[in-house]
Amino acid sequence: MTSGFEDLGYARPDTGREARLGLPEVVYGPGKSAAQVAGIVTSLLAANSGPVLATRLEPQVAAQVRRAVPGARHVPEASLLVWRAARPLGFALAVVAAGTSDGPVADEAAAVAEAVGMAVTRVTDVGVAGVHRLLAARETLAAADAVVCVAGMEGALPSVVGGLVGCPVIAVPTSVGHGAHLAGVTPLLAMLSSCAAGVTVVNIDSGFSAAMAAFRIARARRAGDGAAQ
Amino acid sequence: MTSGFEDLGYARPDTGREARLGLPEVVYGPGKSAAQVAGIVTSLLAANSGPVLATRLEPQVAAQVRRAVPGARHVPEASLLVWRAARPLGFALAVVAAGTSDGPVADEAAAVAEAVGMAVTRVTDVGVAGVHRLLAARETLAAADAVVCVAGMEGALPSVVGGLVGCPVIAVPTSVGHGAHLAGVTPLLAMLSSCAAGVTVVNIDSGFSAAMAAFRIARARRAGDGAAQ
Amino acid sequence: MTSGFEDLGYARPDTGREARLGLPEVVYGPGKSAAQVAGIVTSLLAANSGPVLATRLEPQVAAQVRRAVPGARHVPEASLLVWRAARPLGFALAVVAAGTSDGPVADEAAAVAEAVGMAVTRVTDVGVAGVHRLLAARETLAAADAVVCVAGMEGALPSVVGGLVGCPVIAVPTSVGHGAHLAGVTPLLAMLSSCAAGVTVVNIDSGFSAAMAAFRIARARRAGDGAAQ
Amino acid sequence: MTSGFEDLGYARPDTGREARLGLPEVVYGPGKSAAQVAGIVTSLLAANSGPVLATRLEPQVAAQVRRAVPGARHVPEASLLVWRAARPLGFALAVVAAGTSDGPVADEAAAVAEAVGMAVTRVTDVGVAGVHRLLAARETLAAADAVVCVAGMEGALPSVVGGLVGCPVIAVPTSVGHGAHLAGVTPLLAMLSSCAAGVTVVNIDSGFSAAMAAFRIARARRAGDGAAQ
Amino acid sequence: MTSGFEDLGYARPDTGREARLGLPEVVYGPGKSAAQVAGIVTSLLAANSGPVLATRLEPQVAAQVRRAVPGARHVPEASLLVWRAARPLGFALAVVAAGTSDGPVADEAAAVAEAVGMAVTRVTDVGVAGVHRLLAARETLAAADAVVCVAGMEGALPSVVGGLVGCPVIAVPTSVGHGAHLAGVTPLLAMLSSCAAGVTVVNIDSGFSAAMAAFRIARARRAGDGAAQ
Amino acid sequence: MTSGFEDLGYARPDTGREARLGLPEVVYGPGKSAAQVAGIVTSLLAANSGPVLATRLEPQVAAQVRRAVPGARHVPEASLLVWRAARPLGFALAVVAAGTSDGPVADEAAAVAEAVGMAVTRVTDVGVAGVHRLLAARETLAAADAVVCVAGMEGALPSVVGGLVGCPVIAVPTSVGHGAHLAGVTPLLAMLSSCAAGVTVVNIDSGFSAAMAAFRIARARRAGDGAAQ
Amino acid sequence: MTSGFEDLGYARPDTGREARLGLPEVVYGPGKSAAQVAGIVTSLLAANSGPVLATRLEPQVAAQVRRAVPGARHVPEASLLVWRAARPLGFALAVVAAGTSDGPVADEAAAVAEAVGMAVTRVTDVGVAGVHRLLAARETLAAADAVVCVAGMEGALPSVVGGLVGCPVIAVPTSVGHGAHLAGVTPLLAMLSSCAAGVTVVNIDSGFSAAMAAFRIARARRAGDGAAQ
Amino acid sequence: MTSGFEDLGYARPDTGREARLGLPEVVYGPGKSAAQVAGIVTSLLAANSGPVLATRLEPQVAAQVRRAVPGARHVPEASLLVWRAARPLGFALAVVAAGTSDGPVADEAAAVAEAVGMAVTRVTDVGVAGVHRLLAARETLAAADAVVCVAGMEGALPSVVGGLVGCPVIAVPTSVGHGAHLAGVTPLLAMLSSCAAGVTVVNIDSGFSAAMAAFRIARARRAGDGAAQ
Repeated sequence: MTSGFEDLGYARPDTGREARLGLPEVVYGPGKSAAQVAGIVTSLLAANSGPVLATRLEPQVAAQVRRAVPGARHVPEASLLVWRAARPLGFALAVVAAGTSDGPVADEAAAVAEAVGMAVTRVTDVGVAGVHRLLAARETLAAADAVVCVAGMEGALPSVVGGLVGCPVIAVPTSVGHGAHLAGVTPLLAMLSSCAAGVTVVNIDSGFSAAMAAFRIARARRAGDGAAQ
Repeated sequence: MTSGFEDLGYARPDTGREARLGLPEVVYGPGKSAAQVAGIVTSLLAANSGPVLATRLEPQVAAQVRRAVPGARHVPEASLLVWRAARPLGFALAVVAAGTSDGPVADEAAAVAEAVGMAVTRVTDVGVAGVHRLLAARETLAAADAVVCVAGMEGALPSVVGGLVGCPVIAVPTSVGHGAHLAGVTPLLAMLSSCAAGVTVVNIDSGFSAAMAAFRIARARRAGDGAAQ
Repeated sequence: MTSGFEDLGYARPDTGREARLGLPEVVYGPGKSAAQVAGIVTSLLAANSGPVLATRLEPQVAAQVRRAVPGARHVPEASLLVWRAARPLGFALAVVAAGTSDGPVADEAAAVAEAVGMAVTRVTDVGVAGVHRLLAARETLAAADAVVCVAGMEGALPSVVGGLVGCPVIAVPTSVGHGAHLAGVTPLLAMLSSCAAGVTVVNIDSGFSAAMAAFRIARARRAGDGAAQ
Repeated sequence: MTSGFEDLGYARPDTGREARLGLPEVVYGPGKSAAQVAGIVTSLLAANSGPVLATRLEPQVAAQVRRAVPGARHVPEASLLVWRAARPLGFALAVVAAGTSDGPVADEAAAVAEAVGMAVTRVTDVGVAGVHRLLAARETLAAADAVVCVAGMEGALPSVVGGLVGCPVIAVPTSVGHGAHLAGVTPLLAMLSSCAAGVTVVNIDSGFSAAMAAFRIARARRAGDGAAQ
Repeated sequence: MTSGFEDLGYARPDTGREARLGLPEVVYGPGKSAAQVAGIVTSLLAANSGPVLATRLEPQVAAQVRRAVPGARHVPEASLLVWRAARPLGFALAVVAAGTSDGPVADEAAAVAEAVGMAVTRVTDVGVAGVHRLLAARETLAAADAVVCVAGMEGALPSVVGGLVGCPVIAVPTSVGHGAHLAGVTPLLAMLSSCAAGVTVVNIDSGFSAAMAAFRIARARRAGDGAAQ
Repeated sequence: MTSGFEDLGYARPDTGREARLGLPEVVYGPGKSAAQVAGIVTSLLAANSGPVLATRLEPQVAAQVRRAVPGARHVPEASLLVWRAARPLGFALAVVAAGTSDGPVADEAAAVAEAVGMAVTRVTDVGVAGVHRLLAARETLAAADAVVCVAGMEGALPSVVGGLVGCPVIAVPTSVGHGAHLAGVTPLLAMLSSCAAGVTVVNIDSGFSAAMAAFRIARARRAGDGAAQ
Repeated sequence: MTSGFEDLGYARPDTGREARLGLPEVVYGPGKSAAQVAGIVTSLLAANSGPVLATRLEPQVAAQVRRAVPGARHVPEASLLVWRAARPLGFALAVVAAGTSDGPVADEAAAVAEAVGMAVTRVTDVGVAGVHRLLAARETLAAADAVVCVAGMEGALPSVVGGLVGCPVIAVPTSVGHGAHLAGVTPLLAMLSSCAAGVTVVNIDSGFSAAMAAFRIARARRAGDGAAQ
Repeated sequence: MTSGFEDLGYARPDTGREARLGLPEVVYGPGKSAAQVAGIVTSLLAANSGPVLATRLEPQVAAQVRRAVPGARHVPEASLLVWRAARPLGFALAVVAAGTSDGPVADEAAAVAEAVGMAVTRVTDVGVAGVHRLLAARETLAAADAVVCVAGMEGALPSVVGGLVGCPVIAVPTSVGHGAHLAGVTPLLAMLSSCAAGVTVVNIDSGFSAAMAAFRIARARRAGDGAAQ
């Protein structure tokens, strides 16, 4: 194990990741059998002390894994299993969604963020065609340490949010839309072309990536706290 | 001429278009010599009574055409020549641009709209990253019969405008931006995916098309006025 | 409710939209449960006086919503529910479809337009490969206040229609076609490149968007009527 | 030479092509020096008896080649050199262009077609936004053995022509347009998606390819004549 | 019926197409009910004297249509129904397929071609990775009046065939392939970029279009025969 | 059979390929019936002496073919049937996969490589986000005669491997990923843009192509051995 | 000025942005005249107290602006003008570039970051084809509060860096590359598909956006410091 | 230098690459000043014993570098500088180009291959539209240890070559073509979709990459020779 990974044959869990990055490797479910997920989770639980997550699990796979590796919390709306959820980091994350249909992506972002220690506030259905709804949430946004903006369609929400608050804004395009929306490529490109300076972007529908980007920021702040003391 | 066109060999000016559509054919400059533009304009002036326009003319071509066909007004910032500008239609058009750099496209929309009889109000630099600037223009927008929204980057402006006013909103994506902006394809697709219901879209950088779409609406309203009397 | 929206948690119905735009918010069905649709419709019916629509509902969802919120008219070929259909606006809309297969998109445009108060005339199967069929409908087109042009394949219909009539022409590309048609992207791009001046375009298969664009024009004309008196 | 080609080192002129296909290899100018073009032309003139063509030659290259290999006819508007133009094939080709700006592509099609023996009739500026101009040319089209349709913008012309005449229709998309036109990709895809049965398509701006496709048809008919006797 | 079409409400069969193009309108099956197909076929049979075809019919739809409109021949491998197949045109068409998997597209081309009067020879599995197989078929190709080349993967076959024979070559890209093949877009673009002069291209998987293009050529030759007499 | 192929009507097995390329033609399963696969395999077994393979067979097709043509070895995880597996070539191939989910593609590469005579070493789950796992396998890589690199997501693995070892590196992008990954197009383009000199690329998910590319190299080396003796 | 912007006619400087976001609006140079840039800068200097930046200025425009608005520092390699550079934020940013040719983008990121108060460390030419060069910089990376990763070609660098350090990683794709690199679209898509969790991405060649994203993080940390005290 | 690189500030020459890969790092010229190229070359010459190459140098840059670092051989048609060209590897490489216009890419492949020790045979202008020219070169191809296939247009050449010879075939798409050719993307995709098993592909116009891929194969064979003794 001094090598920083365990060789299971079908996988090489990166057992050194917690030491390097502050969080054990997260298990991405698609394309893996329940037995493989369980094996990797077991390896990670043994080699680390922090939270272990498995994402995007089909319900029956999730059930099998829970039986095989006890102690998991199941967040079904986010298709997530969590072992040893983290202690609070003292970091407030706002997860803002443009429409009701963007819900599952926002659910994943929120559930992962909470599992790794962030306090999450949700704001839903504040699309820019009724911009007063977003302006009404301005104080909520201002109180956040970072904002995850989830939007499909034209993906305009992060541009408006990025102009309202100065904290980090992480944009997540979703596949909600049709036709010229190109399964999320349109809001992805729009967010990358945002006129709001300093907005960053993650992959389509990836609430997980947004939460992990926020986690990197939360850790950076804590490190800063420490340095400042 | 009873055939509805004149055959000049190199072109067939559609002399019946004024009767059918309410406005003579407009001459698109690119790819035509000054002599060709002048020949077509002369044909259209003779066969119609309304305004004749030639668009997207290089400065030297414009100068040659003006010498060959007297009576033109030149709008250099819009690369436009106008003969017999129309009388006022009693239609108020707002031309709203997201950024200073979108100016030339907004200039073309405004100049063409004025040449065919609309009263134009300009609002410039109200990009959504500082949405209070747009909200401050809300009364101006509410007073318009239609709004042309010109925007590059992520093309979010028409979505916000479409949620503020109930009149027709015509979106014009521009080629202002870089990288993931794909020379205007990104705001084009974003505008087509707008969450604001009933926003329509024209081609990239085509201030001319937006003005002509507004002209069709202006004529429809006048027809309605007459029908209502 | 003075805030202009109601916060249902899973949605923020924009209760101020009727006042701003002349029509209550329309509920987009996909991705919402029957309970969510019913909740939003109930909120909108309470906060407004005009027609409330829910679009693109699966048959079983439509049935559940109708049971939960009485008083709806169901238009199954358009997957539409309508409460409190609008009074006639005195606006004649022609919905023209290139082929029989474009029918569902034209159905949605027509049903939404009628629900919000327009009188609709249908013209079907006038594709440009037999252009005499379209020319035979010229009088019908000339009598319309606006034309919605629905076409798949190469999307040429709006260019021909745009050259025949001077009223607003709203083009709707459809996903009818195969191969190089790219699920509607080809007619979308073709319509945006139309040689007919002033044609505007909405998203692929979006009969709803076309009807709403026509509604904006119909309102603009009525406003014009009032101003003229 | 019995091998069917000559090896010049920098090129292997296909000296057997005239025997196989009825026409010597045509020299494509771009990327070749004047000396290379001249060398290949010399080889082809020696090994064949029919017309030899060099296409897309810059003016100065054309001038150098003409000095090096006497006997050429220069068609400057088509950037073409022709040695030993063919005798008439008794085949009538109509070259129809949607707009004045499509001229250079139509010029190339016409010049190549004439050089290989076809009689060419030109019809220019019959875009579908004024479809009466095309209908007025119906007799000209009906008299043709084949039609080459040249169009940029939305590329709708071949669909209408294909519905008017039963002879072969070869569509050539052009790079005339901007924005969503994507440098000719849009009319290319539109022509491939044409609702007119049996229209075929060649590459963007390739008047040459269209003429050669017509030549194949002209030869097929002559072969048919012979077989019928 | 003097108008050149019949208005069935859901469709406007182009009853004048046989007179204009030499063949009645062909009924495209997808998106139409069996009752609609039967209605259109009935209209076309009554108004014309030549063959009537309905393409791309699901088996159960085909069965219903056959019951409703007697007299059809069913070609199941081509999903085709034919009423009143044409008399021989005296035109030999070779349908050449690169691979066994391209079979269904070649089947459609062959069946349609035979239904409208062409004599068809099939050559299958002559992909360019074993080019001797194609060279062995050279005499078959040389005896054809036209060649339809069906190929998926890299779509190279028409380039080689176009260099072997001088008759018209119509290329049909297929969706046979995976990954970088992009569902047929790759061979489509490759065929359009062919180095063999005068090859033309139709839409992906459209054996029907290729057959109709060949029919236009066959008619052109017969017209030529007549003119020569 | 002296012609180098057998004409089965539905296929022309290239019986000369073993002589030309050192390996009989491989049968690609998709789009072929079990009877067709069996017929082609039978033809190839009779005409050659080396291994015969059929790839990408659905389980039930594989079962039918095995019954029809005895003697096959079935490799179910690679959907492969092998008759007369080759003798060892003395060539060591490393098949390296970035993630557990890339397994099926790596399985195909390994199984085909072994069937044609290579010795295969597998290294799995060495994605670049934990680069120490790859560095730990450096000796394994250094001992290989060639490396096949299988990766989805961003496709970075071949660039790192290409910088660690000097032997041939064949990159296989996979469709493992989502959103901006574009079903494998993104790692495909990334691998083609690799900063590691001399890395080559095959089609998405094509473990088969990679194994065959390695086979060409293995044969080249053996030929070199012979020449050196 | 209580409105939060000043209306200059050609622009509406967002004078409230410093209060909302902690930094005055930054002036994007392209498409603006020197007079316009100078006017906006003057407005921003008057209305705010923090640093004012103008980016992407052509050298002669920069010179004119400096004459018009004294006090600027010019960073020519970043095409940047800075007035009132910020005091140190106590935030360490590493700007890591994959290749020497990515220099200009890294220069912009570094210069903007320093202007707004970050301490910047540069690491250059650590492309993944020689991964030991990056590993040698591991301590430098570990000491940073955030890392900006600049890479063209296949864009693999952020994936490796994201696996080495736990702080925020902001990836900037560059247009350095050719062919399949598609002017930066390839590394953009690759970075979005990164297997390293929590890496975020900005637009192609936008060193500016990366620096501003880092600034948002730096501010968030300072806010955190305050909160912790 | 024990670290395996030298840190020049603007670059980190990978001084360990010769030991790892058998060839020193090659200097890619674009985006580097003459001074930077000279500095890197000097570092590499000092740290290695094998050939050092600098590619894609503008003529004046090449001249400056030659003056700064004596001993270079200049290959102007390949824009290449070579110091200490390698001894012969005993490996025969055929560089085959489809057309005369593909010359510069083939020149780069050949010049780089010779500089690193391969014996190169050139075959030019054997495009598949005259496939007998390629068949005439069959013996030349059969004598090669590997073949580099350079082709623009439809990129069919590697498929035919891959079916003629069993040695490694490396395909290089070129940007020679227009329109649907998409600057080389079309032959790139076509080559990746090749029906010839085991053909590999490198980036558009990258003769350099092809030569380096061949070098990896040549080294593998030599290693094999050694192992066999």
